[in-house]
Amino acid sequence: MLKKVDHIGIAVKDIESALKVYRDALGLKHEGTELEESRQLQAAMLDCGGTHVELLQATAPDSIISRFIEKRGEGIHHVCFEVDDIYQTLAALKAAGLRLVDEEPRKGVGGTLVAFIHPRSTGGVLLEVAQKTEKQPSTGSG
Amino acid sequence: MLKKVDHIGIAVKDIESALKVYRDALGLKHEGTELEESRQLQAAMLDCGGTHVELLQATAPDSIISRFIEKRGEGIHHVCFEVDDIYQTLAALKAAGLRLVDEEPRKGVGGTLVAFIHPRSTGGVLLEVAQKTEKQPSTGSG
Repeated sequence: MLKKVDHIGIAVKDIESALKVYRDALGLKHEGTELEESRQLQAAMLDCGGTHVELLQATAPDSIISRFIEKRGEGIHHVCFEVDDIYQTLAALKAAGLRLVDEEPRKGVGGTLVAFIHPRSTGGVLLEVAQKTEKQPSTGSG
Repeated sequence: MLKKVDHIGIAVKDIESALKVYRDALGLKHEGTELEESRQLQAAMLDCGGTHVELLQATAPDSIISRFIEKRGEGIHHVCFEVDDIYQTLAALKAAGLRLVDEEPRKGVGGTLVAFIHPRSTGGVLLEVAQKTEKQPSTGSG
C-alpha cells in the first residue's frame, strides 16, 4: 500500500540557515523552494537518493508551522509516504481504526493528492500519504 | 555524501501496538525485532521501498527512549542517513561547524558503523549517519 518514503518535513525558523546545513554541509541536492500560500509556508525540497527532506518555514505568525515551532521547537513536522491509490489507502486506514485528519484527499504541490493521518493513531507521528497524479485518467481531448 | 534515508526511528511505548499500525494497517514489511542491550531498547525494523521505519521501545525506565517519551511523548526520535565513508562524513560535518554527538563512529546493529549529529545543529532533528561495513577491508586470511 505504501510505496516509499517520499519526504520528511522539517519545521525550521529560517530556510536559508537550514540550507547551509542540509545543502551545504550534508550535501543534499536542493531542487527548489516553493511558496504555499494556502498553508502559509515556504517549502524547500532537497533530494537524498529519491527520498526528500522538505524544509518548512512559516510565512505568517499564526500559521501551522509557526504554531508547531512555538509549541515544540524546530524539528520533524511530518513524514510523507507515497501511495498508488490514495482513496483505497484512506478507506483501508479508516477501516483499521486510524484517525484521519483529511477524510478526503486534497490537492498538494506538484500535481499530487494528499491526506494527513492524525499522530494520535500513529505513535505520535503526523503521517501524510501522497499519490502522484501524472497518470490520472485524461478528462480532455483524445 | 549522504546516499539515502536508511530509516526513521520512532519512539513508542509498546512495539506490539505500533506494529498493529505500521505493519497491519499501513502494510509495511516487518523484517524483525532486535534487542539492543547497550542502549536499553528493542527495535523493530519495517521496510518501505528500501527506507525503513524503526520502532523503538525502552527496556528500562531510565533509558534514552524512556526519557525521550517522558519529555516529548511518542514520536520521531531520529532520522538515519546511509553514507559511503563515515569517517569522511564526520570530518566534513565537523569542519562545517556541526555539533557531533559522536566524534568517532561506534558499532551499530547489523554490522554498521554509526554516529549521531546533535539536533542543535540540524534544525531540531537528531541525525544518525550509518555506514554499512560489509565491504570493509578484510583483516583475516586470504
